[in-house]
Amino acid sequence: MAIRYPNGKKYIPVQNNQNQATKPAQKKLDYSNRGMTLEEDLNETNQYYIENNIAIVHKKPTPVQIVNVSYPKRSAAVIKEAYFKQASTTDYNGVYKGRYIDFEAKETKLQTSFPLKNFHEHQIIHMQNVLDHGGIAFIIIRFSQTEEIYYLPAETLISYWNEMLAGGRKSIPKKDIERFGDLIPIGYAPRIDYIKIIMRKFEWDLS
Amino acid sequence: MAIRYPNGKKYIPVQNNQNQATKPAQKKLDYSNRGMTLEEDLNETNQYYIENNIAIVHKKPTPVQIVNVSYPKRSAAVIKEAYFKQASTTDYNGVYKGRYIDFEAKETKLQTSFPLKNFHEHQIIHMQNVLDHGGIAFIIIRFSQTEEIYYLPAETLISYWNEMLAGGRKSIPKKDIERFGDLIPIGYAPRIDYIKIIMRKFEWDLS
Repeated sequence: MAIRYPNGKKYIPVQNNQNQATKPAQKKLDYSNRGMTLEEDLNETNQYYIENNIAIVHKKPTPVQIVNVSYPKRSAAVIKEAYFKQASTTDYNGVYKGRYIDFEAKETKLQTSFPLKNFHEHQIIHMQNVLDHGGIAFIIIRFSQTEEIYYLPAETLISYWNEMLAGGRKSIPKKDIERFGDLIPIGYAPRIDYIKIIMRKFEWDLS
Repeated sequence: MAIRYPNGKKYIPVQNNQNQATKPAQKKLDYSNRGMTLEEDLNETNQYYIENNIAIVHKKPTPVQIVNVSYPKRSAAVIKEAYFKQASTTDYNGVYKGRYIDFEAKETKLQTSFPLKNFHEHQIIHMQNVLDHGGIAFIIIRFSQTEEIYYLPAETLISYWNEMLAGGRKSIPKKDIERFGDLIPIGYAPRIDYIKIIMRKFEWDLS
């Protein structure tokens, strides 16, 4: 049985780099036949950015509430009971040309809209805070049926979120993501070149 | 028995904010009689910065390698086996006036020097990367015997690290921390006002 986070998202263990050479490629049915999750693609992208001296971006560890740890003699501490916690911030942050950048990545199987329930209020507040303090905040949305990946400014997400709170629709129509966002072409290296979008959008501001 | 990380650091569970009102104040013998750890003081400081619209800084979750999760019906997923992982970055990062800031906080019981074994090579490389990309990187060092807290630029730490790799001493003398760092006075709110140091050091650069 698939293991799931409280939010229903499937738990996919982080790949250990040391095992990649010997591990057979895992095919995931819900991610076409490329065998990579959005998270893996972003991790590879971030690795590419670091190695090529473009930006320093890392994914934050999964937040876990640790309840019980056993400490056997002569071996590493074992966490025996812990729970997934709701993230209070977004998953990715880092630095590009001195500027703070911050984003969350999500995917949907829907084809015509992106549901706002993919976010928690804490994350929306965090993104608003980042914008207020001069950081660059955005989301990366993957439409898994069509393999399209978009960069959407946090400003747009927050505006739809506020409309929802005022009784509006609970999702962002895909046509608005196309209008206010930027399609990120899927490449080989880097796979999801979101820094190129930032470069274009903020070139007047980043020297 | 005290639970410890593989590096020998004691594991202190993160306080749940919702419990603070009802929980009796915990006194920790190794942190004077203030009953607060360095991490708790920094979390309160960061909370103060957010609430007072000064900066957005968060501690990253403790990195954990999850091995086994059970998913009972009608209740939250339980992590049954997991291990503490070595951090590949520093613990704290965020944004101040658009600029990326990044730091690690450590304490020592020694009185005349600060041992470099408090850091891993990954963290040193990460701090160098942050500097190379125009971010502000530093460490916060607490001398627990004297209750003194210093801001030390990552540049100074890295320079001592490189000297150690070349056969030099394995610690930074306290007199050099006093010379190259800044004493952070302990306050009530915020408790550890490191942003004031950044403000002073980088005022020519942050408008």
